[in-house]
Amino acid sequence: MKRADLTEKLLDIKREKGWTWKHICKEIGGFADTMIVGALLGQMKLTKPQAEKAGDLFGLSRPEIAMLNEVPYRGTPMPPTDPLIYRFYEMVMVNGPAWKALIEEEFGDGIMSAIDFDFAFERVANPKGDRVKITMSGKFLPYKYYGATGNVPEYGFKEE
Amino acid sequence: MKRADLTEKLLDIKREKGWTWKHICKEIGGFADTMIVGALLGQMKLTKPQAEKAGDLFGLSRPEIAMLNEVPYRGTPMPPTDPLIYRFYEMVMVNGPAWKALIEEEFGDGIMSAIDFDFAFERVANPKGDRVKITMSGKFLPYKYYGATGNVPEYGFKEE
Amino acid sequence: MKRADLTEKLLDIKREKGWTWKHICKEIGGFADTMIVGALLGQMKLTKPQAEKAGDLFGLSRPEIAMLNEVPYRGTPMPPTDPLIYRFYEMVMVNGPAWKALIEEEFGDGIMSAIDFDFAFERVANPKGDRVKITMSGKFLPYKYYGATGNVPEYGFKEE
Amino acid sequence: MKRADLTEKLLDIKREKGWTWKHICKEIGGFADTMIVGALLGQMKLTKPQAEKAGDLFGLSRPEIAMLNEVPYRGTPMPPTDPLIYRFYEMVMVNGPAWKALIEEEFGDGIMSAIDFDFAFERVANPKGDRVKITMSGKFLPYKYYGATGNVPEYGFKEE
Amino acid sequence: MKRADLTEKLLDIKREKGWTWKHICKEIGGFADTMIVGALLGQMKLTKPQAEKAGDLFGLSRPEIAMLNEVPYRGTPMPPTDPLIYRFYEMVMVNGPAWKALIEEEFGDGIMSAIDFDFAFERVANPKGDRVKITMSGKFLPYKYYGATGNVPEYGFKEE
Amino acid sequence: MKRADLTEKLLDIKREKGWTWKHICKEIGGFADTMIVGALLGQMKLTKPQAEKAGDLFGLSRPEIAMLNEVPYRGTPMPPTDPLIYRFYEMVMVNGPAWKALIEEEFGDGIMSAIDFDFAFERVANPKGDRVKITMSGKFLPYKYYGATGNVPEYGFKEE
Amino acid sequence: MKRADLTEKLLDIKREKGWTWKHICKEIGGFADTMIVGALLGQMKLTKPQAEKAGDLFGLSRPEIAMLNEVPYRGTPMPPTDPLIYRFYEMVMVNGPAWKALIEEEFGDGIMSAIDFDFAFERVANPKGDRVKITMSGKFLPYKYYGATGNVPEYGFKEE
Amino acid sequence: MKRADLTEKLLDIKREKGWTWKHICKEIGGFADTMIVGALLGQMKLTKPQAEKAGDLFGLSRPEIAMLNEVPYRGTPMPPTDPLIYRFYEMVMVNGPAWKALIEEEFGDGIMSAIDFDFAFERVANPKGDRVKITMSGKFLPYKYYGATGNVPEYGFKEE
Amino acid sequence: MKRADLTEKLLDIKREKGWTWKHICKEIGGFADTMIVGALLGQMKLTKPQAEKAGDLFGLSRPEIAMLNEVPYRGTPMPPTDPLIYRFYEMVMVNGPAWKALIEEEFGDGIMSAIDFDFAFERVANPKGDRVKITMSGKFLPYKYYGATGNVPEYGFKEE
Amino acid sequence: MKRADLTEKLLDIKREKGWTWKHICKEIGGFADTMIVGALLGQMKLTKPQAEKAGDLFGLSRPEIAMLNEVPYRGTPMPPTDPLIYRFYEMVMVNGPAWKALIEEEFGDGIMSAIDFDFAFERVANPKGDRVKITMSGKFLPYKYYGATGNVPEYGFKEE
Repeated sequence: MKRADLTEKLLDIKREKGWTWKHICKEIGGFADTMIVGALLGQMKLTKPQAEKAGDLFGLSRPEIAMLNEVPYRGTPMPPTDPLIYRFYEMVMVNGPAWKALIEEEFGDGIMSAIDFDFAFERVANPKGDRVKITMSGKFLPYKYYGATGNVPEYGFKEE
Repeated sequence: MKRADLTEKLLDIKREKGWTWKHICKEIGGFADTMIVGALLGQMKLTKPQAEKAGDLFGLSRPEIAMLNEVPYRGTPMPPTDPLIYRFYEMVMVNGPAWKALIEEEFGDGIMSAIDFDFAFERVANPKGDRVKITMSGKFLPYKYYGATGNVPEYGFKEE
Repeated sequence: MKRADLTEKLLDIKREKGWTWKHICKEIGGFADTMIVGALLGQMKLTKPQAEKAGDLFGLSRPEIAMLNEVPYRGTPMPPTDPLIYRFYEMVMVNGPAWKALIEEEFGDGIMSAIDFDFAFERVANPKGDRVKITMSGKFLPYKYYGATGNVPEYGFKEE
Repeated sequence: MKRADLTEKLLDIKREKGWTWKHICKEIGGFADTMIVGALLGQMKLTKPQAEKAGDLFGLSRPEIAMLNEVPYRGTPMPPTDPLIYRFYEMVMVNGPAWKALIEEEFGDGIMSAIDFDFAFERVANPKGDRVKITMSGKFLPYKYYGATGNVPEYGFKEE
Repeated sequence: MKRADLTEKLLDIKREKGWTWKHICKEIGGFADTMIVGALLGQMKLTKPQAEKAGDLFGLSRPEIAMLNEVPYRGTPMPPTDPLIYRFYEMVMVNGPAWKALIEEEFGDGIMSAIDFDFAFERVANPKGDRVKITMSGKFLPYKYYGATGNVPEYGFKEE
Repeated sequence: MKRADLTEKLLDIKREKGWTWKHICKEIGGFADTMIVGALLGQMKLTKPQAEKAGDLFGLSRPEIAMLNEVPYRGTPMPPTDPLIYRFYEMVMVNGPAWKALIEEEFGDGIMSAIDFDFAFERVANPKGDRVKITMSGKFLPYKYYGATGNVPEYGFKEE
Repeated sequence: MKRADLTEKLLDIKREKGWTWKHICKEIGGFADTMIVGALLGQMKLTKPQAEKAGDLFGLSRPEIAMLNEVPYRGTPMPPTDPLIYRFYEMVMVNGPAWKALIEEEFGDGIMSAIDFDFAFERVANPKGDRVKITMSGKFLPYKYYGATGNVPEYGFKEE
Repeated sequence: MKRADLTEKLLDIKREKGWTWKHICKEIGGFADTMIVGALLGQMKLTKPQAEKAGDLFGLSRPEIAMLNEVPYRGTPMPPTDPLIYRFYEMVMVNGPAWKALIEEEFGDGIMSAIDFDFAFERVANPKGDRVKITMSGKFLPYKYYGATGNVPEYGFKEE
Repeated sequence: MKRADLTEKLLDIKREKGWTWKHICKEIGGFADTMIVGALLGQMKLTKPQAEKAGDLFGLSRPEIAMLNEVPYRGTPMPPTDPLIYRFYEMVMVNGPAWKALIEEEFGDGIMSAIDFDFAFERVANPKGDRVKITMSGKFLPYKYYGATGNVPEYGFKEE
Repeated sequence: MKRADLTEKLLDIKREKGWTWKHICKEIGGFADTMIVGALLGQMKLTKPQAEKAGDLFGLSRPEIAMLNEVPYRGTPMPPTDPLIYRFYEMVMVNGPAWKALIEEEFGDGIMSAIDFDFAFERVANPKGDRVKITMSGKFLPYKYYGATGNVPEYGFKEE
């Protein structure tokens, strides 16, 4: 059984039952919807209790429940051909250099974590057309510049 | 003169003067910092008055000022090899499918615009390590399903 | 069930019945032919009533009908190896820069939407060989340059 | 001298003079604007009289004038990273299969020429946002299925 | 059923029966061998009578016969890894620029059609090793440079 | 000096003098035009006497003349973006499998040489549009299946 | 049946029987081991008598035996990810330019055939670690520079 | 000035002076050698005092010193063609899946940071050939699974 | 049977039994865990006795046991999309040039073997977040510069 | 100065002087010709005395001499477009799997080194066309399967 097969099975059941993602996420609970949907699409894992709930909901076997609790091999093909996902890709492609310049000026050398970050989106009504509002916050991780004294690094260097 | 040459020149001057992006953005004014920096890095355009101000600040020739007012050929090489930008790319690669599922469930068939969107980031102090908080809002653009009556489309179909 | 499997099934039935696309589009109705064919080939969605009609016509199960009402993961492999599709690709590759220059001069910074656009083609008799006439119209979406006053963008900047 | 160098020079002069493309196209005349701009951007050729006019306008040397009358090595990098051009690319990627199905049903096996085609765009005012209207017509070229009688093909086979 | 599955089935039957391509082409008739073999390998279509004959020969079902009469999605993976096909690819890669220069000097701006062209090869005995002689002739298609008078192109411009 | 620089220089002189390829080939002589043009474009070599003649014609230095007598690093970027060259590429992509099947049936296992082949094209007048006629003949090289008796191969195996 | 399926079947049988390649090659006989193994892995063909022997050994059906006597579509994915094969790839990548320079100086313009070449390897004991000794010899094929007298090439030009 | 130009200049001076990297690192001091060399090769930044020392050592201008204190656009072309670097790439390609399985079993869902990690290598004498010993330690960053209560994530979920 | 199928089967059993990798590695024994897990994931081989133990543990057939004792075709798709593996890839991409410079200065021209290397990781508790500590040691392989005296190389050249 | 610039300079001088590679290699001496030519083309290093000799021969500056004594960043673009080099690439692509199978059967799990290998070629007269004979021998490097007892590997496992 591959993770993609399980995803396909879950989508077949969702389709047959006529469930919405909202309904599924509410049933499984505990995490933000984006994470639960991510797990069911094979990009995140569920906790054991969540996987049990998903198993009850979708009528899964024990190995399928266990698979939902495993860390998947993450990632999807790039560049994305789907227009909705491509627009996010394009934002990074066009704005990445400016984001880099400004984040580094504010925080110093480092990155915004793609591991320790949260993400929420909401619908904002607007007479010119509703808007998708996205809020995310990621931990800033400074590049560590370790010392010259061998295998035991000193993390006390002050970046300038 | 290529846009990349102008960018290189601007960065040389910034380096020589010891200016920060904050300082430059404040001098040029009018737009959010990410847009001004984006323009100076060759991904956005400045308005004429802004380009004039940039010209005064950096001591640019008239054609260089005119170039800053032109729409550039946007986009940077992908995948990004720089870790800071790659993390954003990875977010899209890992979370894109879940974002697509949830946005489409909420808004119907369409995309979040990468053209009509704003972007802001701020530093959020956190005892476990400060965080980069990003807020963006993009106009939702529904896929238009036009009618069967020839070359003049009817935009009145209600998506179901 | 994957969308590609459903497409394959629909094409098998079309082949067996000896139907034309014209016939199928007329049966399903409501949208221009390019959109209905696009949906049956897995690139667009049908409305619920259309999906029901397609279900009646092709003898589909309920989950298959539901799938036709879902937004698919859009996009096909590029570059296209098929000569008919490649010619359109080539038009973009060769003429893209000129289109960009002239559209931007006329409309300012922005794009022609690939989401809110219609498309029609017709056969034009010509003694030297008939011609394919294509008419499309897409909404112009101006790049939004938002302001410097924080997370609430001001959309009042006049592009110059 | 490479064609790209000549393009760069022409754009520098255009920028310095503050000319619009409209102005330049009117000065050179004879072809639709998209073709003249295409030639100046290195994707098309001008006729000798047009190249002479361009030479007068831009103050070009004889070899530069000759180069404008040469067929260039056509094509630009794909996929296009610029959003305006990418939207056209996306149209082909998403709608290509449906266009192929419908054109072949109407015309039989063959292609719409990317060589013998015209292209025009106009601005269409619209209260919800102006639209870019594009009209193109390309000669249909039927695949030739030649006969079995050796090196001299018979073009009389009727496609069925 | 995919076209590749049909191809695989045809090759299995050919293998089982011990037929040569020559034999198959003679049975189906009407087109040059390269076109019939191309159709059976999924790159060309057969006419209805030819498809019927192929159906009789291979014992095909009606949908399989219908599929042989359909225009396939053409093209095979590139670069070709098979040495025989790669050599043709190499000829284009090495000689393409010279062919372009000479054809354009002789014919003006345009292309040799890959749609309206015939192809024949024969064996030429040679004491140093037999040779493959290939003769092809393709229609020259001049680039159309249309006029400046709006959406109705004038095809009367004389290229210079 | 790179070969590309020499090519650029030769093209500059050709442009300045207003020479045709025909004229240049006639001056240099000895080979078919496609080979001489190929050499001047950096894909073939000239013999020493030819390189001398080219040196006289273009006014080249001794190292430049020597370079024309050197075997270049052959090959150009693929896939070709230029439509004229792409059409040849497409012919290989679409027809390669059929050519392979028929050549192997006729000749056995092996290839048509891309090294020992000649190439000629001529213009064929045709009321429906002139045609480019191409004739090439390449030596067939059979795959050698050598024997099991160590490092000295026996070339006597008869292919079946 | 695809060639890859037959390869998989042969490997399954080899694994089940516990045979070595040496044993299999001895049973089939006639060619060097590298060629027989290459054929069984789907990169070469066997002669009819060899295919019969392979059929006896592996218990194959007639179409499977016929398939072993067919020329396969050669080639494997590149770059090779397997370290053993990658090392050969690296040799070409690093040493290719020097080999080209020296072979061309010795032989003139041409190539070493990859079609008419033999290959043998043997184990050479060495106190610092045994060595793999490879000996190959390929026919040198000189580039043919044909004449200017039309479609019938003259192969008498002496390369200088 | 591009970072690559500065790197080239530094290497020219190093070559002219006959300095070793050890000598340069000792002069600049403060960080482990791999970080200082990384900075001089354009992949890391130096602190201001280090950049000053580098400026003294290499005789750099103020903007060059400033550039050494800037965060570069990191990353080098992949796959690496150089054998020394490729071997590291191969280790990841071959062993990545096993590392992932074992790290996740030990630490749960997350990654080993490529930002907060140190690296040291030393020479280990060995009669069969000296060995390169590499020790690195990276902070484990657990994937954050945030809660369902809106935009303010709760980081208290215990992974199971 | 493909190696990937066997891997999928082993993972299914592991999931069903609820085994950890630690447990599996202890049962099979003899090698470090990374090698055993690597073998079960299809990148390494087990010895015959280990394969027997794995066969007992997982209830495998004889050909499956034989397959675990075979050298697989190594390598996984690159670039890795999974964040955990990507971070190692990024380390090589960013730090490769510095590692090359320092290893070559210390050892001379050559590489660190990716074949003869060991690898261990351990968890290091740390109040700021536990760390993954990796230790590896690979044999240094000096580039061999052999002599000019023909086919029998002299390995006595001292690198300088 | 980049290594490619030095290569270009060396080739310019070779061309101007009319030297052969044989002559140059004899002047520099000490290594096989393939290694000296490799070094001059930027893929290998020369020893200090050899670099001095090359400096005398070509009239190089001290930094240029130093550069010839440096290990270059090895590797050239792949796939090779030049036919001579491509044929070697094709040999690996077609024959790699058979080489792998036979080498592993003879030597066990491991690779033939691309670092510790020698290479010689010679011309073998042959009435059917002279042949290029290549002999190479590379050290076999067995995959090391280290033990389970921590960071100190035991190299005593006997592969089975």
